[in-house]
Amino acid sequence: MEKIRGIVFDLYGTLYDVHSVAGLCDTYHPGRGLEISTLWRQKQLEYTWLRSLMGQYVDFEQATRDALLFTSRYLTLPLDDAARMALCDAYLKIKPYPEVPEALDRLQAMHMPLAILSNGSAHSIRSVVTASGLAHRFQHLISADSAQIFKPHHSVYKLAEDQLQQDRSAILFVSSNAWDASGARHFGYPVCWINRAGNPFDELGQSPDHVVAGLDQLVHWFEERIGAG
Amino acid sequence: MEKIRGIVFDLYGTLYDVHSVAGLCDTYHPGRGLEISTLWRQKQLEYTWLRSLMGQYVDFEQATRDALLFTSRYLTLPLDDAARMALCDAYLKIKPYPEVPEALDRLQAMHMPLAILSNGSAHSIRSVVTASGLAHRFQHLISADSAQIFKPHHSVYKLAEDQLQQDRSAILFVSSNAWDASGARHFGYPVCWINRAGNPFDELGQSPDHVVAGLDQLVHWFEERIGAG
Repeated sequence: MEKIRGIVFDLYGTLYDVHSVAGLCDTYHPGRGLEISTLWRQKQLEYTWLRSLMGQYVDFEQATRDALLFTSRYLTLPLDDAARMALCDAYLKIKPYPEVPEALDRLQAMHMPLAILSNGSAHSIRSVVTASGLAHRFQHLISADSAQIFKPHHSVYKLAEDQLQQDRSAILFVSSNAWDASGARHFGYPVCWINRAGNPFDELGQSPDHVVAGLDQLVHWFEERIGAG
Repeated sequence: MEKIRGIVFDLYGTLYDVHSVAGLCDTYHPGRGLEISTLWRQKQLEYTWLRSLMGQYVDFEQATRDALLFTSRYLTLPLDDAARMALCDAYLKIKPYPEVPEALDRLQAMHMPLAILSNGSAHSIRSVVTASGLAHRFQHLISADSAQIFKPHHSVYKLAEDQLQQDRSAILFVSSNAWDASGARHFGYPVCWINRAGNPFDELGQSPDHVVAGLDQLVHWFEERIGAG
């Protein structure tokens, strides 16, 4: 990490908590909110991977709507059109993890170029960072929509290299999703895995270069290097 | 379905029950067998999709071994090398669903060419059909390994069209996996979904042409057509 010249973050599950929507799910089906949001997230991921592999791309909002419809049917927990719209709208305003705002502030103070590379559409990414008041932290908001396929396809990871105009070896990719960290590592980025839950890493032929329990730990590591440098 | 000239079956979860291995899992961790086999299957699927999308293909046995290793770590249920080998070996001898042997017999009696198209390697497919005494039912055993990518990529579905030497519109594709049925439908096969569990179909932009609760129902449908014809 001697020559890191930019940091690219995944958004969903990495900087922002996808289970922010569990509370609203719970208002529709009391006691079942986290169960709904967990299956919804699982199916959302599956649908992005499967549609990419089938060559049947739809944007992230569509995959998210489709996943919620399936979830409601599978769990036999009815959600009418208005409820589904409200829940998908809530996905545009999910919350950052608690340590994230200050950590981004400290990284920006080090003059480190920061970017987001997400499977979300440009509209989704913009909505989430704006609603949380963090839009000004990022020099680039990069959507898989530009490649018309989802991560972990290499053409999505390539978008960030092109936008930052740095070689991939000089860009640190940060994700909490082990499959995403694996894809980025296969592409050639140095990778930091944020493992908040203490899970094992996925067995996809790669290991992360760095593992931290929260974004603050990564910032601390950078600050120590600068202090020592 | 007027002009069906061949039937192509998925193997895992369609003709054969992947949870056949739950019993052996249970001998290693009593009471946890089904939990292990369920997560193992989920991760096995994810790893085939993710590696395909990353362009990092490994064969099905490797993905299966990797998925079991992750499962054991995630559930903190230790499995030593010998246990993991025994479990992966059990995957080569999984059992057909109860109605399958007779249903295949009746389809063969109608002189309908039958094939398997599976993400399993040629060795895995051969082992499973031989161990269950059903190898003689199939004219073709077709492995995704020939395409070096997994379903639902279209190049895997193409393998069956090429082998059967029939136009895709004349080949009935049968799967219990909704994502697989969706992929085959996008490719252009007429599709029968075997929905043993009474689940909703996945929201991937397609619907199956036929839905049955077991393979015997599909056979019955064919026999009625012949009787009426």
